[in-house]
Amino acid sequence: MPKTNAKGLSPSVTLDRDSHRPLYLQLVDSLRASVENGTLEMGTRLASTRKLASDWGVSRNTVIQTFNVLISDGYITSRTGDGTYVSDATTPPGTAAQTNSETTASYPFRGLSRRGRRLVVKRAIGVPERPLPFMPDVPDLREFPMRSWLRLLNEVSGGLTGNALAVASSMGYLPLRKAISHHVSVTRGLPCSADQVIITTGSTQGLDLVIRLLTDRGDPVWMEDPGYVGTRAALVANGCNLQPVPVDGDGLHVETAIANCLSPKLVAVSPARQYPLGTVLSKARRKRLLDFAEKTGAWILEDDYDSEVYYDGPPPRALSTERGNDRIVFLGTFSKTLVPSLRLGYLIVPPDLGEHFANARVNSQGHAPLLEQMVLAEMMNRGLYAAHVRRMRVLYRERQTALAQALAETLDYRVPKRELTAGMHLVLPLVPSVSDAEIALQLLDKRVVTRPLSPYFTGSPAQQGLLLGFAAFNPESIWEATNRLAALGHHISRAGSHLDRVTPPTGRRNP
Amino acid sequence: MPKTNAKGLSPSVTLDRDSHRPLYLQLVDSLRASVENGTLEMGTRLASTRKLASDWGVSRNTVIQTFNVLISDGYITSRTGDGTYVSDATTPPGTAAQTNSETTASYPFRGLSRRGRRLVVKRAIGVPERPLPFMPDVPDLREFPMRSWLRLLNEVSGGLTGNALAVASSMGYLPLRKAISHHVSVTRGLPCSADQVIITTGSTQGLDLVIRLLTDRGDPVWMEDPGYVGTRAALVANGCNLQPVPVDGDGLHVETAIANCLSPKLVAVSPARQYPLGTVLSKARRKRLLDFAEKTGAWILEDDYDSEVYYDGPPPRALSTERGNDRIVFLGTFSKTLVPSLRLGYLIVPPDLGEHFANARVNSQGHAPLLEQMVLAEMMNRGLYAAHVRRMRVLYRERQTALAQALAETLDYRVPKRELTAGMHLVLPLVPSVSDAEIALQLLDKRVVTRPLSPYFTGSPAQQGLLLGFAAFNPESIWEATNRLAALGHHISRAGSHLDRVTPPTGRRNP
Repeated sequence: MPKTNAKGLSPSVTLDRDSHRPLYLQLVDSLRASVENGTLEMGTRLASTRKLASDWGVSRNTVIQTFNVLISDGYITSRTGDGTYVSDATTPPGTAAQTNSETTASYPFRGLSRRGRRLVVKRAIGVPERPLPFMPDVPDLREFPMRSWLRLLNEVSGGLTGNALAVASSMGYLPLRKAISHHVSVTRGLPCSADQVIITTGSTQGLDLVIRLLTDRGDPVWMEDPGYVGTRAALVANGCNLQPVPVDGDGLHVETAIANCLSPKLVAVSPARQYPLGTVLSKARRKRLLDFAEKTGAWILEDDYDSEVYYDGPPPRALSTERGNDRIVFLGTFSKTLVPSLRLGYLIVPPDLGEHFANARVNSQGHAPLLEQMVLAEMMNRGLYAAHVRRMRVLYRERQTALAQALAETLDYRVPKRELTAGMHLVLPLVPSVSDAEIALQLLDKRVVTRPLSPYFTGSPAQQGLLLGFAAFNPESIWEATNRLAALGHHISRAGSHLDRVTPPTGRRNP
Repeated sequence: MPKTNAKGLSPSVTLDRDSHRPLYLQLVDSLRASVENGTLEMGTRLASTRKLASDWGVSRNTVIQTFNVLISDGYITSRTGDGTYVSDATTPPGTAAQTNSETTASYPFRGLSRRGRRLVVKRAIGVPERPLPFMPDVPDLREFPMRSWLRLLNEVSGGLTGNALAVASSMGYLPLRKAISHHVSVTRGLPCSADQVIITTGSTQGLDLVIRLLTDRGDPVWMEDPGYVGTRAALVANGCNLQPVPVDGDGLHVETAIANCLSPKLVAVSPARQYPLGTVLSKARRKRLLDFAEKTGAWILEDDYDSEVYYDGPPPRALSTERGNDRIVFLGTFSKTLVPSLRLGYLIVPPDLGEHFANARVNSQGHAPLLEQMVLAEMMNRGLYAAHVRRMRVLYRERQTALAQALAETLDYRVPKRELTAGMHLVLPLVPSVSDAEIALQLLDKRVVTRPLSPYFTGSPAQQGLLLGFAAFNPESIWEATNRLAALGHHISRAGSHLDRVTPPTGRRNP
């Protein structure tokens, strides 16, 4: 969490340190009881995880794991930057259902459901209002090929019969699914048929669908720490038990996870380029992860959010190229290569799950808008999409180089070579003594948009830093904006990123 | 369920008829136990609800209610037209989570989650492939104003800056939300601000969002019986405890529901024109429903799927016009008036819930595509949308008249006046001795698309019938297709619809 706060109640708990029951589960039991017997009243604000950890004599990760379970059970709600509160979960599910209408069982009016309260948890990072440097995660919107997009739109819609408008597969427009299956087999070495491709209105929708289909509330899910806030939000929204796994220079620290985390129903990972740190999952780690998944039957969600922007040769091949994709769901998006507001993304699912995903969409999301899909299919089939991506790659690389040079000259910071092979943002590591969130706020006053690194952590932040996006801005504005970072000089961690140090195990799960 | 089947196992159960515990809950307990102790094996097919009802000596509704609970708990799965099966729910949630990775807790490989199994339940009615008469629920797609749509698209996209493409509210494009709030206040007497309007990619997405935010698994929800299959699928997908409520000439039979159904967390209703029967919720029933909801704190989901096509004067005012909309979510769509494949719909939510819905969308769905929203906003602001709706109203009324005349001349069936005031389909009532599903199949061979009425029922069908859609077809093809119905003559229920008879209470909930 970005901020913690000394205010708030620190409830007394009962812990048996000789018990074999994990400490965090003992804490869950104890706090649940206090909520249900009314000792802990609804709306009570709890102290910061740091304070609770010291009061209870446990590690901060244990407190965070406890909170994750209680949040997924609807006992507490966490409002980012505003602490954690006891929510009204005193009426267990079904209770009201036992009574009947004549005795008019009543419900707390205006109350969201327990799952609803999980669904509305605010993200640690909001959507930035203005595309100012260094806003990350956005392509250069001025480069969106609007003219050819409209030309194709007029073309395809001209050929539209009423029939075409009526017939829409919940998996998506077949020609687009074919184009995508061809695209990923060429660019990612991922052979798949159109029947494995599901067109979504963006990765958020895909994430939600995968999590609902493959996990139940309370199921442990490994996610990268730091990791994509959208993945975390979707997991919390669906009541999963978050298992933060540290990341180092080789990507997800699989060994640490196996040693310290609950056995996962699903592993969410970005192997081609870890988000936000930009490291690549090493060969050894890939093998370890796939072996473990095969042994335990875990599903793998492979987030492939920006493999299109690899600058030196092709990106690492998709995970599923190693042993087939009977347990891997591949998540792709066009928001990074075209424009987010088109809302087009896709899933590639194991062959036997295609129909399940299709049915799930019929019942919960419906299909994506047809016209966009028709236009994109044409773009891809005529090679216009590939050409656009190539053009962006050249453009973005120039801009990455410009940012690296500007950081070197202005702040005397040398970006590690590893980071200069791909991506749309760089991470500027800061010394542990500063708060990246506060610095980001100060920079906003100077009209410089940066993203603090710490909110991307689910556990306690192992590193302070700033994400600097460069894709959407030309070299001139990059140099100009970097000058406004000059004051940062003495905050920069000359030791470089913590990635170059081996990540310490996050503490035994059962102390 | 449309079909029942004599095959399948009829498990022995223990019932205590003197107990105060409702019979259906005793059945749930008993069957759950059998699944968990392995007496009932995964994959076992259960006998038909009719057979089980007689074997267990309870009403069929009791069996259906039992099944609804077991389905929502993931203990059984129901495949429409293919009976009910025991699913693998022997691993209660969290069990695996208690063990740790070194002992490699493993999961049933390839298994969907319990909630996933609910999410993939096939709808009783699929999406028809070809727009042949009498396919219901589709507008005349040839009438979609594609030319002005494209002209506006070129206009608005011309004015697009990169900024506009980046900034997108998860509630939807503000000018469109303003246009819709104006539209519904004028056409439905529903005063609301743009901050209460959420743009969705169609009503399915809206339904799912409302159900997740306002109900928990196991919560009882009233729904119309017969009712919209999409609503039923979304409720089942989210594990709600379906409480089917009969419908008569005055709409939802509120009294019967209060007497026989579990007190609802949410009531799903289509007051302006009941789907699929086309009746209007009477003034008395509206009052009774609103009183009951106020007394019990129930939420109301008002499905307003086609109030645009009222032929004699304006449609009944929205429910919320009576007492404000602090408990009512209003569901609207553009699929009926423009074209389904655009994927544009909207929700109007209570003022204090707007932000919750916005956050929920960020975490689970993302916003709707921007360009469509910009174009529709322009259409509405320039009066082009209202003009299109007026034109369709004239066209559809002609077609309804043509169908009514054709039915009178060809089948000597007189459509009740009540049905001729609005809508896009008529219901042809059949005698109880026939199966509407079989007849619909036979008609398909004659290239006539009709929808059987019975799959719209959640409880046992109170009426056999056929839905005949007329909106998408010109009078000539309507007459021509009606001739191909001639053979139906002797199957038509001359007693008219069951709506004209008072609906009998569906049997006490606690016998």
